[in-house]
Amino acid sequence: MISQISIIGSGNLAWHLAPALENVGYKVNDVYSRNREHAAKLVGRLYNAEVKDNLDYSESTSDLIIIAIKDDAIEDICTELIIKEQCGVVHTSGTQPISVLGYVPTEHTGVIYPLQTFSKSKSVSFEEIPICVEAMTSTLEEDLKILSGKISKKVVKMDSHDRRLLHLAAVFACNFTNQLFHISKELLDRRGIEFDLLHPLIRETVEKSLNLGPENAQTGPAARQDYEVIDTHLSYLSQEEELSSLYELITKLIIQQTSRE
Amino acid sequence: MISQISIIGSGNLAWHLAPALENVGYKVNDVYSRNREHAAKLVGRLYNAEVKDNLDYSESTSDLIIIAIKDDAIEDICTELIIKEQCGVVHTSGTQPISVLGYVPTEHTGVIYPLQTFSKSKSVSFEEIPICVEAMTSTLEEDLKILSGKISKKVVKMDSHDRRLLHLAAVFACNFTNQLFHISKELLDRRGIEFDLLHPLIRETVEKSLNLGPENAQTGPAARQDYEVIDTHLSYLSQEEELSSLYELITKLIIQQTSRE
Repeated sequence: MISQISIIGSGNLAWHLAPALENVGYKVNDVYSRNREHAAKLVGRLYNAEVKDNLDYSESTSDLIIIAIKDDAIEDICTELIIKEQCGVVHTSGTQPISVLGYVPTEHTGVIYPLQTFSKSKSVSFEEIPICVEAMTSTLEEDLKILSGKISKKVVKMDSHDRRLLHLAAVFACNFTNQLFHISKELLDRRGIEFDLLHPLIRETVEKSLNLGPENAQTGPAARQDYEVIDTHLSYLSQEEELSSLYELITKLIIQQTSRE
Repeated sequence: MISQISIIGSGNLAWHLAPALENVGYKVNDVYSRNREHAAKLVGRLYNAEVKDNLDYSESTSDLIIIAIKDDAIEDICTELIIKEQCGVVHTSGTQPISVLGYVPTEHTGVIYPLQTFSKSKSVSFEEIPICVEAMTSTLEEDLKILSGKISKKVVKMDSHDRRLLHLAAVFACNFTNQLFHISKELLDRRGIEFDLLHPLIRETVEKSLNLGPENAQTGPAARQDYEVIDTHLSYLSQEEELSSLYELITKLIIQQTSRE
């Protein structure tokens, strides 16, 4: 049973996760960060936590250490951790496998991966955020499910391989989507047309796609194989190799998929 | 001054536009459609309109005829229209230029293009939908601005060239985005992971992008030039030529744009 927690990291996720854990009854003992000031700021958001100056948890009463730091720093931190054998250690990364915690001197390693993007300035409700859970021992797995279930309505057990696939899918659906918005905005900027004009259409398109499923929501020139419009668009983009390649490639994929269904 | 209107077409846009015009005080006299049954259904949503069986408006009291039909059918309909010289005629297409109305025997031709996607089953509030207006005469332009301003808070004067660019930008931001969601969903389907898990992240990403501007909202492996993660993703996609090309291309564009800013 987990009741006391130590946090390593003071970035966007730690910023929201630590208070959320307190709100559902966990005691957050301390926050460690390479940047002591950041740790102090996060501690300021908590009831009774302290800034921790080192990675020696041999005297700690924490049952779980949550490592919420940049992906590529996790392994380094692990080599420095000093902990009691029965203490659990988890990271929160979508891309790093559970095995990155291999250096930690406990068998109770795991992952809790909240599927959301966080900014310090924006408050967030964990309730709606799916949390993917993985653990090397069944004891820790149960504990992590209970912990995650207290802050979120949606807890899913997922191994490292599937979590990585989920992250890849998120890159397509989120990072790449943002880039399409960026391209769209830059096209409009050329003629001084405000991107805001497209906001209602974008919001409606996204809602339609999520509600009906993207496979049932496609519209536009590619979906209706309107080659006249497609050619006009391509001739507009003819001087821009990358944008016309991108237009051609996605158009091709839409035509393939809509004619398959 | 426009007070009476005839509608040609009974598709998704006509379905919502005709009642919206009535709601703000216009009299819709009649609806013409190639499919008489569809016209009758739309008439059923209106106060006092009739089904019209032909395109002879020489005896009509309408001041404006709104052609809300498929892009490639507009020109054909125009060759058949019989109207009074002072009657205005507009189409509602994003891609067709105003000149497609060249056959109509009046100088008062124009375009009102509501920037939204419509489905018959889903009610829609025109108030938030931007309407782009264009006209060949200043009289009609004024009339169309007044009419559009009664149903929408956002009316923009826009010529055919810019409207086409806006449509291209919408294809990138909407149709292509839907395709990215589709790809994302298919990736998850392979391992039986539900796409629903990504919904909160997608919604938050889109809101962030629209609120901060896409140029300030990019995150993910490409934005932080995390080549280790990018390579893992590409090796996962190595058997799929089109998906890996797409991944490489958008990643390249993100790296270019984030390092520019």
